[in-house]
Amino acid sequence: MAFEEKMIKSEYVFEGHLIQVRKDLVTTVNGESVREIVDHDDAVAIVALKPDGTIIMERQFRYAAERVVFEIPAGLVDPGEDPETAAIRELREETGYRAGKIRYLTTTYPSIGFSNEIVRFYLCTEMEKGETEFDENESIDLEEHPIEEIYKKVMNGEIADSKTQIGVLMTMNLIRLGELKDYLK
Amino acid sequence: MAFEEKMIKSEYVFEGHLIQVRKDLVTTVNGESVREIVDHDDAVAIVALKPDGTIIMERQFRYAAERVVFEIPAGLVDPGEDPETAAIRELREETGYRAGKIRYLTTTYPSIGFSNEIVRFYLCTEMEKGETEFDENESIDLEEHPIEEIYKKVMNGEIADSKTQIGVLMTMNLIRLGELKDYLK
Repeated sequence: MAFEEKMIKSEYVFEGHLIQVRKDLVTTVNGESVREIVDHDDAVAIVALKPDGTIIMERQFRYAAERVVFEIPAGLVDPGEDPETAAIRELREETGYRAGKIRYLTTTYPSIGFSNEIVRFYLCTEMEKGETEFDENESIDLEEHPIEEIYKKVMNGEIADSKTQIGVLMTMNLIRLGELKDYLK
Repeated sequence: MAFEEKMIKSEYVFEGHLIQVRKDLVTTVNGESVREIVDHDDAVAIVALKPDGTIIMERQFRYAAERVVFEIPAGLVDPGEDPETAAIRELREETGYRAGKIRYLTTTYPSIGFSNEIVRFYLCTEMEKGETEFDENESIDLEEHPIEEIYKKVMNGEIADSKTQIGVLMTMNLIRLGELKDYLK
């Protein structure tokens, strides 16, 4: 059985707005070791699928990657907010679309080696267009593309964002399995 | 066009072994903002596929997630090391398998919102079994499962690790597309 590490001592070394970083001393299979952990709020990612088979995509400059990234809508869950509510809210704020139907897809730990961040994925369908409400410092370009096209970009390595890869691969597989009939009428 | 943020000032607030954390002041579409960024070395993840259709899986306690996680082999690229060489090395160290053939699959930014970490995915085939060489503080249980079974676990939400989700979904799709014939003889 894999050894379960226990915390001996925990010390916050950075407390920011988006992330908190701690240095924890833990018991390991061979004694003790230090684990550097990034605490991050839970997030949601949204595959927003229209009846014509297109999904809503965003282009935004990602400072961490130092480039414009092509990705599905996503955002943080507010404290005390239900993740599904957060997905509907983020879709509305970032794209203007109101989701009529929503289906949970899966959950992921994007960087399990050093962060407790969780991303929950939702499929939104039966959407109505309204106005966007971007955050003050957000600059997002919206595009709509056939999910088949984005799927091909995932498979040939043109999509570099993990949540877009996971959300699009899962949704395409569900479509092929015939499991989204109730969502694609 | 999405606004491209430029760095005004950068300050390291934590310099650890695995991660370095900086607080950068940047120009945004509406003025200035602070970006909290985690610098992390590049990593590799390996789908190690045997002729019988099984892949090598690991169970290890992940302190960040506070639980044992079921995942594909992965590890950090050493400074100056070629990523493909790192994938072959990590597979050998963690599983004992020597890869006869290797194919690049894709690259991902797992947490593009706050980290520059990159994970490159490789498919390893034609493997020969040898001895494992775990790192001092690693405790890893090895298992071999049909890729179909792991794919089903990804689709029904039983796999929570992003690199396992991406690696397995992509590999299953390549198998279905008939693109892995040279790797599956």
